[in-house]
Amino acid sequence: MSSRTVIRGGLVVTASDEIHADVLIEDGRVAALAASGTPAAESLTAPRVLDATGKYVLPGGVDVHTHMEMPFGGTFASDTFETGTRAAAWGGTTTIVDFAVQSVGRPLREGLDAWHAKAEGNCAIDYGFHMIVSDVNEETLKEMDLLVEEGITSFKQFMAYPGVFYSDDGQILRAMQRASANGGLIMMHAENGIAIDVLVEQALARGETDPRHHGEVRKVLLEAEATHRAIQLARVAGAPLYVVHVSAEEAVAELAAARDKGLPVFGETCPQYLFLSTDNLAEPAFDGAKYVCSTPLRPREHQAALWRGLRTNDLQVVSTDHCPFCFTGQKELGRGDFSKIPNGLPGVEHRMDLLHQAVVDGHISRRRWIEIACATPARMFGLYPKKGTIAPGADADIVIYDPHAEQVISAETHHMNVDYSAYEGKRVTGRVETVLSRGEPVIDARRFVGRAGHGVYTPRSTCQYLS
Amino acid sequence: MSSRTVIRGGLVVTASDEIHADVLIEDGRVAALAASGTPAAESLTAPRVLDATGKYVLPGGVDVHTHMEMPFGGTFASDTFETGTRAAAWGGTTTIVDFAVQSVGRPLREGLDAWHAKAEGNCAIDYGFHMIVSDVNEETLKEMDLLVEEGITSFKQFMAYPGVFYSDDGQILRAMQRASANGGLIMMHAENGIAIDVLVEQALARGETDPRHHGEVRKVLLEAEATHRAIQLARVAGAPLYVVHVSAEEAVAELAAARDKGLPVFGETCPQYLFLSTDNLAEPAFDGAKYVCSTPLRPREHQAALWRGLRTNDLQVVSTDHCPFCFTGQKELGRGDFSKIPNGLPGVEHRMDLLHQAVVDGHISRRRWIEIACATPARMFGLYPKKGTIAPGADADIVIYDPHAEQVISAETHHMNVDYSAYEGKRVTGRVETVLSRGEPVIDARRFVGRAGHGVYTPRSTCQYLS
Amino acid sequence: MSSRTVIRGGLVVTASDEIHADVLIEDGRVAALAASGTPAAESLTAPRVLDATGKYVLPGGVDVHTHMEMPFGGTFASDTFETGTRAAAWGGTTTIVDFAVQSVGRPLREGLDAWHAKAEGNCAIDYGFHMIVSDVNEETLKEMDLLVEEGITSFKQFMAYPGVFYSDDGQILRAMQRASANGGLIMMHAENGIAIDVLVEQALARGETDPRHHGEVRKVLLEAEATHRAIQLARVAGAPLYVVHVSAEEAVAELAAARDKGLPVFGETCPQYLFLSTDNLAEPAFDGAKYVCSTPLRPREHQAALWRGLRTNDLQVVSTDHCPFCFTGQKELGRGDFSKIPNGLPGVEHRMDLLHQAVVDGHISRRRWIEIACATPARMFGLYPKKGTIAPGADADIVIYDPHAEQVISAETHHMNVDYSAYEGKRVTGRVETVLSRGEPVIDARRFVGRAGHGVYTPRSTCQYLS
Amino acid sequence: MSSRTVIRGGLVVTASDEIHADVLIEDGRVAALAASGTPAAESLTAPRVLDATGKYVLPGGVDVHTHMEMPFGGTFASDTFETGTRAAAWGGTTTIVDFAVQSVGRPLREGLDAWHAKAEGNCAIDYGFHMIVSDVNEETLKEMDLLVEEGITSFKQFMAYPGVFYSDDGQILRAMQRASANGGLIMMHAENGIAIDVLVEQALARGETDPRHHGEVRKVLLEAEATHRAIQLARVAGAPLYVVHVSAEEAVAELAAARDKGLPVFGETCPQYLFLSTDNLAEPAFDGAKYVCSTPLRPREHQAALWRGLRTNDLQVVSTDHCPFCFTGQKELGRGDFSKIPNGLPGVEHRMDLLHQAVVDGHISRRRWIEIACATPARMFGLYPKKGTIAPGADADIVIYDPHAEQVISAETHHMNVDYSAYEGKRVTGRVETVLSRGEPVIDARRFVGRAGHGVYTPRSTCQYLS
Repeated sequence: MSSRTVIRGGLVVTASDEIHADVLIEDGRVAALAASGTPAAESLTAPRVLDATGKYVLPGGVDVHTHMEMPFGGTFASDTFETGTRAAAWGGTTTIVDFAVQSVGRPLREGLDAWHAKAEGNCAIDYGFHMIVSDVNEETLKEMDLLVEEGITSFKQFMAYPGVFYSDDGQILRAMQRASANGGLIMMHAENGIAIDVLVEQALARGETDPRHHGEVRKVLLEAEATHRAIQLARVAGAPLYVVHVSAEEAVAELAAARDKGLPVFGETCPQYLFLSTDNLAEPAFDGAKYVCSTPLRPREHQAALWRGLRTNDLQVVSTDHCPFCFTGQKELGRGDFSKIPNGLPGVEHRMDLLHQAVVDGHISRRRWIEIACATPARMFGLYPKKGTIAPGADADIVIYDPHAEQVISAETHHMNVDYSAYEGKRVTGRVETVLSRGEPVIDARRFVGRAGHGVYTPRSTCQYLS
Repeated sequence: MSSRTVIRGGLVVTASDEIHADVLIEDGRVAALAASGTPAAESLTAPRVLDATGKYVLPGGVDVHTHMEMPFGGTFASDTFETGTRAAAWGGTTTIVDFAVQSVGRPLREGLDAWHAKAEGNCAIDYGFHMIVSDVNEETLKEMDLLVEEGITSFKQFMAYPGVFYSDDGQILRAMQRASANGGLIMMHAENGIAIDVLVEQALARGETDPRHHGEVRKVLLEAEATHRAIQLARVAGAPLYVVHVSAEEAVAELAAARDKGLPVFGETCPQYLFLSTDNLAEPAFDGAKYVCSTPLRPREHQAALWRGLRTNDLQVVSTDHCPFCFTGQKELGRGDFSKIPNGLPGVEHRMDLLHQAVVDGHISRRRWIEIACATPARMFGLYPKKGTIAPGADADIVIYDPHAEQVISAETHHMNVDYSAYEGKRVTGRVETVLSRGEPVIDARRFVGRAGHGVYTPRSTCQYLS
Repeated sequence: MSSRTVIRGGLVVTASDEIHADVLIEDGRVAALAASGTPAAESLTAPRVLDATGKYVLPGGVDVHTHMEMPFGGTFASDTFETGTRAAAWGGTTTIVDFAVQSVGRPLREGLDAWHAKAEGNCAIDYGFHMIVSDVNEETLKEMDLLVEEGITSFKQFMAYPGVFYSDDGQILRAMQRASANGGLIMMHAENGIAIDVLVEQALARGETDPRHHGEVRKVLLEAEATHRAIQLARVAGAPLYVVHVSAEEAVAELAAARDKGLPVFGETCPQYLFLSTDNLAEPAFDGAKYVCSTPLRPREHQAALWRGLRTNDLQVVSTDHCPFCFTGQKELGRGDFSKIPNGLPGVEHRMDLLHQAVVDGHISRRRWIEIACATPARMFGLYPKKGTIAPGADADIVIYDPHAEQVISAETHHMNVDYSAYEGKRVTGRVETVLSRGEPVIDARRFVGRAGHGVYTPRSTCQYLS
Repeated sequence: MSSRTVIRGGLVVTASDEIHADVLIEDGRVAALAASGTPAAESLTAPRVLDATGKYVLPGGVDVHTHMEMPFGGTFASDTFETGTRAAAWGGTTTIVDFAVQSVGRPLREGLDAWHAKAEGNCAIDYGFHMIVSDVNEETLKEMDLLVEEGITSFKQFMAYPGVFYSDDGQILRAMQRASANGGLIMMHAENGIAIDVLVEQALARGETDPRHHGEVRKVLLEAEATHRAIQLARVAGAPLYVVHVSAEEAVAELAAARDKGLPVFGETCPQYLFLSTDNLAEPAFDGAKYVCSTPLRPREHQAALWRGLRTNDLQVVSTDHCPFCFTGQKELGRGDFSKIPNGLPGVEHRMDLLHQAVVDGHISRRRWIEIACATPARMFGLYPKKGTIAPGADADIVIYDPHAEQVISAETHHMNVDYSAYEGKRVTGRVETVLSRGEPVIDARRFVGRAGHGVYTPRSTCQYLS
């Protein structure tokens, strides 16, 4: 295709502005914006013209929390980088940041190389990596410095999953100290896994084996506790902190308290915590297993605190924690023992739509939608302004979005490689029409026209949200 | 002059972006932005080209708290709309929102008309009005509805100054209820003036008459108390609230607590609270009178909380509360009785520079500078995106700013009509070079080329910061 | 009767101890306690022996908030000092502190003299006075010093009831400053009456005239606000503060926050807030009027916070705010206009029993019962150890209490001069059997054997709860 | 000696009362109190009469945190039960509760038996035991039930000292659950030892080996963090919690926040945190080692928060954590490596005097002194009213205290078996004159007249401070 495109007549929505402007794309980047209908706009011409009249023109979504092909509990997340990034594109997401995994006793590099191998040549959209640090030792700490230099600028640790990903408080402190020195950002799974595992064992011993018990043992107080602890350790280390998949009101309160003190502490939540609840975990006939993830779904009352946190900027990002497992053959591994259900939900395809529904429902404004789904994730993880906005010089990762179209979410029609939808039957207003990645169409009027391999690895600078 | 201008080669800084872009202005508005050096940028041409290489290209400042020709304590603020707006332009501010005053027993309309008469034809830059409501009654409440419709969408009340501007809690509640219904925004001077007046009387009776006692009697706890009370009244009324000139750490804490609850409560501070302190009020030989304003300057330790509030968005706006009185003949009215010193400081000229110095000093980021000085004030008071940003369609109120130039603030060189500077001798880095108002030069390479009457009254929509 | 009495075999319960002891009374005072059954106990002999086997031996109740013959809304509280103190004795209360009222424009002394005249010679039990300060001026402040010296050591102010008892913040500050100097304690009715009166007027204008609207307009937030304001004013004055009839969870939170800072701020609640709710205010056929008092009854959910405050000592005292008005002829004054219903409930007779029920229900411990109903009120208002405990040297104000007896509260059987009971039909466990006042029987095995005039005015020292 | 004693003419001070009363002792117990000078008092006669005119008559001190002969870091605390309890008696303490230690891998019983063997026949005053639980497993949990039944009703766990006493959060949760069921009380050493050990290692690697670094690595935030975590785990378990040796303002804040929620969470501090600071740790020539204990001494500014907590009852108990090591030969083990300095201070002899000094200094009232040093410790650990008060039926553990005598604390004159004093040269007002244990003199007019073996093991009931 031509290297020049003009998108005409849409409402360009970014984190800060809503403007009626035409957008000129040259060589994969946004070259110019001009007020629609002005002579300046008319002078923007290109071989390819997309008509966005009546539509939104959005920066492509940035999903900073996905797990493609993730090994967990003896199986693997069911989306490959190919299927997963294609589904992402269908949903208006043009960048993912996935998690490479260090195995205990092995170098970071080995894990990173493995993940590069999985992704390379397979992605429909651009991607980057965080590194899961499972084993903090002197070598690991040195490798962290190297990884920051080559664009892996964030490191995830787990206060849960003892024996698997778990880091103790000393390992966390060491990693935070290193991140404080090299500019990296520690991402934290904040649940007190040591205490939770006691409760899991006791629940199973009592015969409480159904999926809903997964939600009951992973207690709100133990998420809040771990969140508080991570914040205190970050203060000791002098490091910033990013808490992943915040689900509980009490955890939001810990973040808000830290923020009131001016600490560089950030929080992410996910659509499942905003739209689903323990009611889903309690669905009969083992259907609750579809909703097993950690942190777990919470009682419905917690949702208001999450929306409030998103409005007050005590929560800054909505990602998906996309980690799909098929009901048949995968979720079923946990029949009779909820602790054996692979943890994770599919979601990469629906984040932009669900959050637009939140705009429609009045939870957030249109600009805030773009801020939490595109601009801030990009800033937080060093991708701005290349990703996350529509401005001269930015990558032309652009979505033309129909705010009036209606759709019903269903496994029948979704594009993720998983046999159920967590939102089956949910009707939402708004739909992705066309998606460009660096100026090239991936979705064109609701046809997939992209290709595996178009998406490239994107090294990241350090966190841009601190200054 | 020509109706087309191009600004080339600068770094365009807005609340959300920092981009190397050329800006095309047509008919007083921003028509297009194009990535500098691209073919698209080269295609933007105009008769007038401003070279901004190595400079910042900023949205003009929006100062939402000025008092030109304000009557106070038997005298008048020494800047007219002509001298005051000219000085504002020199400092990179292209919009002010001044306060029309209702006299007790008189209609709002009468006060508004008087202020229109003072401003019309005299301003170098655009202006709007808030309305000071001194007398809440049934007629006043009805007039509030009318004023909102004609673009006066914010109303200031005073918990201080009994017998002058003071409203009691019932009057405040009624005005807030009305604002809740008509979309208006209540701006609050939050000090417990009833209690303060007792302390003033007692101090004077003890012979404590120097300017520094002004700071001592207007206690931090009484600002915090009034802030808390205003917030609670706003909750009862279901109305948003904007607290003006927040000066004390404890008041910031009240705002932060409200914000943690998700309440639509906002706060403004001013450069004098960020850069000056009770040390200035204690300057000898009655020089402390130069720094008498209310809320008063606070001990230096409070500054950290204000900066933190600006970073965490518990404070959203920096305005000047520009209300100058000459030392000779005006401030001197209070020799021997600090309560007779006219309250107010000059400042409209230096806000943008002082806040840039804060960027240099590391208190805030460059984008946050523009957000608190341009974008959020515009949004808060219904001027966005006409004012406060550089985007296609916005008014071409643009400042070319040299971030490396140094200057020394002094009454010798400033342009405000007042015989002293509150920042005399302060060296700052950064200087306004050129200022456009709706595309027309007002300051051109540090020469004033504007004219009284260029600036026009600008009606405002209701608060855009709520959604 | 003889001047010596022994009470044998009971469980003596004080704020700190529960001991099986015999109590010897000589000359109206507790002379000795001895461990029951020991030779020491056997050596305590007296002409009069009361058998308390299986019973509690308690210090007589101290009710520090009563309004006998109180003028309000054009009528008078229906209990005289004679009927009211007799009812108090029936309920195990042996000391009341009532409120003398200053009329606006008149000296404190005049009000105090009037109340002395009402009480003298009429009381069955001992009594003291607080002073309601309705008009703070130089003369009032001087009189406060004199009153403290003669045993009137506490002064009540109202943030509610503008035009009647209301003090503005300046008057409150002045009174607090004076109290800070002379050792007096300011008691505060903490409701923002200025704002409430706006809501009252608006409700009536909307035709909302039923008793339940009394509860709706006197909003929780406006009690919390006033509580916060009173605390801040007390901080400015450097004075302690006692908040009367705390009813709302949010007000308790303000007290708890003050307490966490170590401030000398105290709170009282009343049985009606612990046992009744807005459900009662909503009773049909104008029966809600029986429950109209201010602060008003709150939704049932607030009760848990009050109990918690009593347990954590964020609330220190339970008094009755006894202020009875007959339904017929008095409460009825407000038919068609809730604002005309006299504010107040009968209660002086049932405080000790209701709080014992709270012991039975597990809300508080037995010792805490005595602490909040006897010991702390006495300490708070300078009556300790004369009143409020059973210890050698204390006045022999003693109750023999049967913890197992059951009774049903009813206007049929109560002894207060009022035609209804707020607790009609409520079954409680525990009953007063015998009451001694300074060693003399007032109630003897559930017969009234006291007399008007036995009770004497009791001057008080300053607050003993501070040190 | 005779089994009857009368103490005449003193001021009996308990947690709740200050009364001029004579005290009759029969058979080791308080038999009667009578108001001094009354006929009732005169009728109390005994062969032995102690004149307490001008003196205080106090309940003997209850020190619930001592470590006699405690093994630590390869050495043993230098006081035996004989020398330690004798010193305690000299200081007016008549009951200690010491810590029996479970070794990892061994039964609780074995540790308890060992401690019984050390104490039996050697103590001058009565004693009880807490149990240190080093190894939570199924057997340990069962043994906890048995121990509660035989009067060992409290169990200490450590969040510090990994590899020695450390319990992980799962072990803590299990023990708390068990305590919740059997009525036991978990006592917590709340420091994040895992993180601290990282900081220790890093400090030593940097050559920071002096005693003052002990204070720097054991950070305030890590005490506060562990305190918060312990509270949350207790909430999950539904158990009460007692935090030992609270030293940091931020930890007090965690306790206060828990208390505001009504949680059964309690805190103890020690004289060393109230009177000493990091200034002592920084004393030259390795003298800082004398002050090495954990939690460590804090900067002086923390003391105000501890005093405030004691006043507001956010801290309930002052114990000593008496754990003496001689400077010569023991503290010296850590020359060149602060982590090898045995942790602990001598203090059992001076608690009552230092807290009386706090009364003199105005930090606490006289009654509060007795409450935090006698009554509440006894209640908290199930010894009330046998210990901790002077009331008919209580053990006659009584101190005659001269509030006017002055003394200078010094290793020259103290009775603890340790070669230095942490308070060397400190002048205090107040001194123990005579001490009775169960009616028998231990100190008589400042001569030791007691004997090893008088003191007996005292089983305890479960916590009496909850109800």
